[in-house]
Amino acid sequence: MPRYALQVEYHGAPFAGWQRQADQPSVQGAIEAALARLEPGPHTIAAAGRTDAGVHATAQVAQCDLEKDWDPFRLSEALNHHLRPAPVAIRACARVAEDWHARFSALERRYMFRLLMRRAPATHDAGLVWQVPHRLDPEAIRAGAAHLVGHHDFTTFRSVICQAKSPVKTLDEIRIEEHDGFSGPELRFHLRARSFLHNQVRSIVGTLERVGAGRWPPSRVAEALEARDRAACGPVCPPQGLYLVGVGYPDDPFA
Amino acid sequence: MPRYALQVEYHGAPFAGWQRQADQPSVQGAIEAALARLEPGPHTIAAAGRTDAGVHATAQVAQCDLEKDWDPFRLSEALNHHLRPAPVAIRACARVAEDWHARFSALERRYMFRLLMRRAPATHDAGLVWQVPHRLDPEAIRAGAAHLVGHHDFTTFRSVICQAKSPVKTLDEIRIEEHDGFSGPELRFHLRARSFLHNQVRSIVGTLERVGAGRWPPSRVAEALEARDRAACGPVCPPQGLYLVGVGYPDDPFA
Repeated sequence: MPRYALQVEYHGAPFAGWQRQADQPSVQGAIEAALARLEPGPHTIAAAGRTDAGVHATAQVAQCDLEKDWDPFRLSEALNHHLRPAPVAIRACARVAEDWHARFSALERRYMFRLLMRRAPATHDAGLVWQVPHRLDPEAIRAGAAHLVGHHDFTTFRSVICQAKSPVKTLDEIRIEEHDGFSGPELRFHLRARSFLHNQVRSIVGTLERVGAGRWPPSRVAEALEARDRAACGPVCPPQGLYLVGVGYPDDPFA
Repeated sequence: MPRYALQVEYHGAPFAGWQRQADQPSVQGAIEAALARLEPGPHTIAAAGRTDAGVHATAQVAQCDLEKDWDPFRLSEALNHHLRPAPVAIRACARVAEDWHARFSALERRYMFRLLMRRAPATHDAGLVWQVPHRLDPEAIRAGAAHLVGHHDFTTFRSVICQAKSPVKTLDEIRIEEHDGFSGPELRFHLRARSFLHNQVRSIVGTLERVGAGRWPPSRVAEALEARDRAACGPVCPPQGLYLVGVGYPDDPFA
């Protein structure tokens, strides 16, 4: 069966997460239902990152197998038609080899976290950012974040229900961008790794917020990491600021 | 009674517009209801621009009169508390003179219109932009827009239900910015005038879209303006890309 790679954007709010669930709406379920309108199912699709409830994506990557030899552009148009009005959009579609896998072929995941610093409640960006009422010190955050880059045991920064076999991961990059956003000043955290542990980004951003607020010295991030103890983590921040923004493969299927 | 100026942000989607209506939600009504939680009403507030249904604001300016001598920051905090969960936020508050008027003291209104150019339906920016599936030519749009700057009879570009006494207005600026937006490439139209006619911005942007799409030569904008005929206007574009982004006064009350 021909295999297709899909680049998927979604608003996380109405979904219990990426993964299909029996009794709650999911992004996977929405796309599989749209596929069933094109060819009788059941369809089972796989994605590079199984994002949590409330987490967004601008460029999740998923795969699907179909009987028919679809023109990729027409496939994306047909899926977008059947996905309406769910806030899920196929931004690109490509034919890939039958041994290509959205999850197992991926070499890198890129996440972005939007943190809005302002006091008045956000209206246009509600549900799209984590809002804090105080200004944060980006230099302190960068100093704290520098301790996390590289090959480490991230036990402190993963959920207790994380199912990864090992807590050892390599964080290739964590870059903090000061952004003049539509609703006010934002910090945008850009993180890049081969793979992430469950809740790793939200645990890191929540901890770095404490550093930016002056409540933690940057050196405490190193101590928390070295403790290899979930109790040493700062507060886990909420999901609505988090976006899966890219997945890297040996060859970009959408190039 | 002490008078206060309020800088107001709102998401236009749930409202029938700024102006209070008997049977539909309005931004004015939401703020007046919040004021009634602070001091018994009825309250009647005035605003610099009476935006239409679905139109947003980042910096609408309104005025209110209260019995008590409120600290402006505490007033904004109390109003934001009582406005929840409506997508209306007081971003700034200032005490002003009792003869200051949000509408009649204003010297200038600034609007911004967001036009997203991409094919896949927008998810995060749904309701916040006007989306067209094709790319537009910004240089052609700028050439067409140049005909509109200055002192003109804008009969072509106003709603037939516009209640302004005269169709003659001075458009001080129309600037088209190419913006690399969160959801893709945007054109942002920035318009500035002492005052605008009803539907003037949406009539202008809808007409300029035809120019950007290559369907109208830029010179046809000049012909449409000179026709002084509503029938010569291009299609009026939808409201959800439009934002009131600033109001100018002889002295900025929020400075």
